[in-house]
Amino acid sequence: MMKQVLIGILCGAAVLTAGILIGHYGIAKGNGSAPSWVNEVAKDVDESLIERFLSEVDNIQIQENLRELTKVPHLATTAGDEQTVQLMLKRWQDPETGLDQAWREEYMVYLSFPDPKKPNKVTVGDSSDTVLYTAREKEKSYTSDQDDPEVVQPYAAFSPAGQPKGKLVYANQGKPSDYQKLNETVDLRGTIAITRYGGAGRAAKAINAAPYGVIGVLVYTDPSDINDGLMSDSNETYPHSWYMPPSGVERGSFSTNYGDMLTPYLAAKEETYRIPVENITGIPPIPIQPIGFEDAYKLICELGGTVALVSWQGAFNCTYNVGGPGFKPTSAFNNSDVKLDIFNHEELKNSSNVMGVIRGSVEPDRYVIYGNHRDSWVHGAIDPSSGTSVMLELTRVLGMMVKQGKWRPRRSIIFGSWGAEEFGLIGSAEYTEQYFTKLSERTVAYINVDIAVFANATLRASGMPSLQNVIFKAAKQVYAPGLDSTSVYDNWIRYANRTSSTHGTIPKVGYLSGAGSDYAAFVHYLGITSMDISYTYDKSKTNARIYPAYHTAYDTFDYASKFIDPGFVSHQAIARTAGNVLIRLADSLVLPLNCSDYAETLEDYLNTAVTLYQPKLQANGISMEPLKNAVASFRSAATRLDQVIHSPDLIITANNHLIVTRHISFVQLPIIVLSFFISRHVIWASSSAGQPTFPGLADAYASAESSGHSSAWAKVHYHLSVLSQAIEGAAHTLVDVI
Amino acid sequence: MMKQVLIGILCGAAVLTAGILIGHYGIAKGNGSAPSWVNEVAKDVDESLIERFLSEVDNIQIQENLRELTKVPHLATTAGDEQTVQLMLKRWQDPETGLDQAWREEYMVYLSFPDPKKPNKVTVGDSSDTVLYTAREKEKSYTSDQDDPEVVQPYAAFSPAGQPKGKLVYANQGKPSDYQKLNETVDLRGTIAITRYGGAGRAAKAINAAPYGVIGVLVYTDPSDINDGLMSDSNETYPHSWYMPPSGVERGSFSTNYGDMLTPYLAAKEETYRIPVENITGIPPIPIQPIGFEDAYKLICELGGTVALVSWQGAFNCTYNVGGPGFKPTSAFNNSDVKLDIFNHEELKNSSNVMGVIRGSVEPDRYVIYGNHRDSWVHGAIDPSSGTSVMLELTRVLGMMVKQGKWRPRRSIIFGSWGAEEFGLIGSAEYTEQYFTKLSERTVAYINVDIAVFANATLRASGMPSLQNVIFKAAKQVYAPGLDSTSVYDNWIRYANRTSSTHGTIPKVGYLSGAGSDYAAFVHYLGITSMDISYTYDKSKTNARIYPAYHTAYDTFDYASKFIDPGFVSHQAIARTAGNVLIRLADSLVLPLNCSDYAETLEDYLNTAVTLYQPKLQANGISMEPLKNAVASFRSAATRLDQVIHSPDLIITANNHLIVTRHISFVQLPIIVLSFFISRHVIWASSSAGQPTFPGLADAYASAESSGHSSAWAKVHYHLSVLSQAIEGAAHTLVDVI
Repeated sequence: MMKQVLIGILCGAAVLTAGILIGHYGIAKGNGSAPSWVNEVAKDVDESLIERFLSEVDNIQIQENLRELTKVPHLATTAGDEQTVQLMLKRWQDPETGLDQAWREEYMVYLSFPDPKKPNKVTVGDSSDTVLYTAREKEKSYTSDQDDPEVVQPYAAFSPAGQPKGKLVYANQGKPSDYQKLNETVDLRGTIAITRYGGAGRAAKAINAAPYGVIGVLVYTDPSDINDGLMSDSNETYPHSWYMPPSGVERGSFSTNYGDMLTPYLAAKEETYRIPVENITGIPPIPIQPIGFEDAYKLICELGGTVALVSWQGAFNCTYNVGGPGFKPTSAFNNSDVKLDIFNHEELKNSSNVMGVIRGSVEPDRYVIYGNHRDSWVHGAIDPSSGTSVMLELTRVLGMMVKQGKWRPRRSIIFGSWGAEEFGLIGSAEYTEQYFTKLSERTVAYINVDIAVFANATLRASGMPSLQNVIFKAAKQVYAPGLDSTSVYDNWIRYANRTSSTHGTIPKVGYLSGAGSDYAAFVHYLGITSMDISYTYDKSKTNARIYPAYHTAYDTFDYASKFIDPGFVSHQAIARTAGNVLIRLADSLVLPLNCSDYAETLEDYLNTAVTLYQPKLQANGISMEPLKNAVASFRSAATRLDQVIHSPDLIITANNHLIVTRHISFVQLPIIVLSFFISRHVIWASSSAGQPTFPGLADAYASAESSGHSSAWAKVHYHLSVLSQAIEGAAHTLVDVI
Repeated sequence: MMKQVLIGILCGAAVLTAGILIGHYGIAKGNGSAPSWVNEVAKDVDESLIERFLSEVDNIQIQENLRELTKVPHLATTAGDEQTVQLMLKRWQDPETGLDQAWREEYMVYLSFPDPKKPNKVTVGDSSDTVLYTAREKEKSYTSDQDDPEVVQPYAAFSPAGQPKGKLVYANQGKPSDYQKLNETVDLRGTIAITRYGGAGRAAKAINAAPYGVIGVLVYTDPSDINDGLMSDSNETYPHSWYMPPSGVERGSFSTNYGDMLTPYLAAKEETYRIPVENITGIPPIPIQPIGFEDAYKLICELGGTVALVSWQGAFNCTYNVGGPGFKPTSAFNNSDVKLDIFNHEELKNSSNVMGVIRGSVEPDRYVIYGNHRDSWVHGAIDPSSGTSVMLELTRVLGMMVKQGKWRPRRSIIFGSWGAEEFGLIGSAEYTEQYFTKLSERTVAYINVDIAVFANATLRASGMPSLQNVIFKAAKQVYAPGLDSTSVYDNWIRYANRTSSTHGTIPKVGYLSGAGSDYAAFVHYLGITSMDISYTYDKSKTNARIYPAYHTAYDTFDYASKFIDPGFVSHQAIARTAGNVLIRLADSLVLPLNCSDYAETLEDYLNTAVTLYQPKLQANGISMEPLKNAVASFRSAATRLDQVIHSPDLIITANNHLIVTRHISFVQLPIIVLSFFISRHVIWASSSAGQPTFPGLADAYASAESSGHSSAWAKVHYHLSVLSQAIEGAAHTLVDVI
């Protein structure tokens, strides 16, 4: 006789399956004649296999993976990139340690490059066009890595070409408020603005500038933002430490949106329709170029005009003036212009994803996807090869267990090595566009490990609240690097924690609201339950906005092995933690996803929204009751589902043989409900309002509060309806039968 | 040991489930100890139960259902509508013959009504405002039904109120080409246009007129279009026959879109955001009013001006002139104007759906939905009560079998009695908006039976090609009414057939491209596999565009029982056929949906598209290869799936215990890809091009061919990409594992 029937939950997963069902044939009380497939189908996670996996994960293998991946620069679609494609294919097709299948998928995508024959230039010239100063065209060499001819000149991808020339001004971080403030005292028409990284997106620094008549923009990383103020390469910066050398330049994609720009919502195949280039939005309307702080120092410290606000001052040993516009009368640059000679060009190029799969045994058409991008700006040791090294070690260990016949996951595992992430998450976005339906229906979860290790202090995890529990479980089973008697979990909780109404003090798991890595298309477009983890630094010990070699020519094996993770033990901890989560998601009979934890987040969001918004919403005749009711519906559906799952009488409470998998979809509306490109998820999305609550509501409210227009309040009401009905819709999918 | 594993298919279903799986425990070869739930789970359709169902379906019960449903007019949201709500609830909650559960769901929707205190008027007045002629305000009485004070005055729902007055012109069917033609010889500014029903949508007759300066529109049904030319109520029309009496007026919703107008994409709950009324699109910009042909005769035969085209002439025994504008000099109406006094008003009203459910035993969270609207314009005996009478007989028989413990469907069956269909499919559309996610994921199929019987000649069926097979199977098991030795199928094939490349000569199943009834939101919005069936007339014997009492005060029990289906045997045949399909969809272990039949339709569409479009597409540099490849991918995936399903070695070819349900989704893109409201399906949608091929492609091509603009050809390319990728996406969902 059947003893119990289990209910699998896909809490938080995307538009997914209504009903997989498995009869768990109880052998204890049975007559001993259970058919063998019943036992196979009812198999749960094997803890001894997880132990074996943890012990197999090898830090030296990861180190050697990294060494191989970073031999040459591998900018997307270059020969170096192709070398990494071949490496991935070779590893994943290895007969001893490979996957069941591996292949490449190509997309023809729109990229932007500088011209190696006509390098971009930034110069200071006087009225007779005599060049008084020329910024560095490439970063200074400290190891042979920087001498590689394939090191791409620092540039702003998707900046238009052009030769703007004008008086320099200092515009802080290039936020809308920065230009607004600056414009109060300086006529910005015809000027070149120098800005710091941080505070606004890369493209935004130029997009925000153009309406004021600014004709060109420079951007640099201030030592106060990356180097804890240190500047000297004689003893303070790399190769003496992890800090950015004076000539280091952060490259990047200067685009607000993601995915191939010419084929929104469609896979960028050769014959795919492409929008006219002039219809592209979210890229700089005026030339912009990044420079090192060594050059920025020369320019900023010579600026005239009034003294910039205290909050605009940086680490240079001079006063940051806003510009006359232009340089101060006492400067050798007095009356001179700054000129940008930008020769970037756009090109359609073939970019490859490398895909690999381990077929599932019982639910082969359910996918757990694990991915990272493969392309880098230069050698990309940390970004992204730390993550790729970890992925290769995971696939080696899992592949070996499969090839040896010791294991096969319950569900299929898909590995993705995405191309052209640095140009706007392109490979992963095209993948989600091409396989939209199938992935929406079949994907259980997506795990992203991009930069695996920022530093050696602690775990950092972000993801849907429903994954919190399985991340904790995995983190408890892995020792923290360098702390053999402390788990990753116990170490983590010291660095980042919060108080949960259900669980008490627990590590703080972040939200995937932004579009910082390849999880974006999975979360914001498909609505799939996703997570992103890494090892990171102790924020009390540095103010660096990111590891200092980020997107520079110094992000090399030498840098990684000396200053980021000597011994590669943090890499090993991430491989163990991520792999543990991966196996649990692939093998658990009942998916380890927790709907009640999702409900807790919704309640937190709701409380914030009620506190911040209810008075003015009421004053504008907009009721929050539908939202409160929706969150309450979700909570009660989650609670009931928990009871059903944990009921020993499941066979009695549910229909006999009831076999269902539940999921939640928060992307129920077929329309793009938020103002951001490709943003369909009403809970997780970028928000400019910066409040820990429903992003679309927060932005609509901020806009209405600022304009006071009745049409803006109508939009708040509209968003409240969309949000409430999406949450009610998610709750419905947790409720029994009807 | 397990003998075989079956694969369920949801071919053509919407965004649906990846994986339900059932082990079929073979008892023949087994050790006899199969657990009972294994047998239950593996149970297939019980043919003896279907026989029992067929024999229980009773024509007299249907007749009595109709009598009760049509006692009083039941226009949406009126007291008569509430009586039908109560009737449905009473029947579905009956302890002996009811469903497991029944309830009502309310929406607050935007409707349009005339003013009973100020009836709409159409008059002819001379220059001194003396009224020379007044059109009837209500239809003539032949039975007590027409005397019911609740009979709503004929009106055009959503026509604006207003009192336009001007010279009359005759504009044929009010198509764009009609007004264009007319405008060549007549100055239309300030005129009132009289038009015939047919050729263009109701609202379109006014929308097309307004740009020419027309200020009001009349619409009537020409006896040539509905009565085979007959006009006299002394011996030719109802109550002497099924033909429309001279004063009969077709009411209707004059709106291009469907669903509640103020809450697009959102369920119209009390607190839901509503768009401003001035933002509504698709309704008449000028007043429009329907009149009987008795009044149209008086007006048209007095018109002056030139003789209208031969194709514009109708059945009246006079020459149809186009109007001077206005009446001819010899007419008593010479120099007179026609005046419309329209007092329609819009109102937010509570409309109810009545829902009922029979819980499934094995897959309770898979739904087969069966529905029809409940509201009518007047008594609505045929539209929609013929369908509701059939639905009530189905639920009586099925409910009884459930209550007696003789049957419980494998999957859940949901019955929907939709409100406010006549105002634009509102109840069903709001239902799909409210439960978007859950329905998209869980619904196996939707069966719509609105007008069950137009006439007694033959079955008429429309639906997704994947359903063709199960419709045929059901139709073969039911005797054709009045032909006891001929099946519905054998009778049908005589009236409507086609040659299939796979099956030879078979009955012709229509496509659900338009939005004629409540299947629209299921097909075009959710993408769910759907069908619509009825019994209909012999087209060789009448030219009536629909049964003549349609939307008039003559659509009564008396009319239905005397002229449409005496003895209610065609109703019975529809109940048997639809019920048979319903039981098979609910009970089959492997869903009886055929992907290869879908492939055949795609190939037919493709061949048509290549023939019609390829030369000019090539000339414009647009390749059809991606579309050809996509259709080929779909075909090969369907073929492979067929092989897997029919393979006796399934256990060997697939992974052990592989248990998956497949489906196809053609609505993969989260954007509204076609130009029609709520239209997400790339295969089934309204198309103005009128070609038997992909609707969006056809319309884009027609537009590009007519304008020749490069931007229009770019749109064709865009649509080709959307279409190809949607079909590739659908094919992917049929393919194994990855």
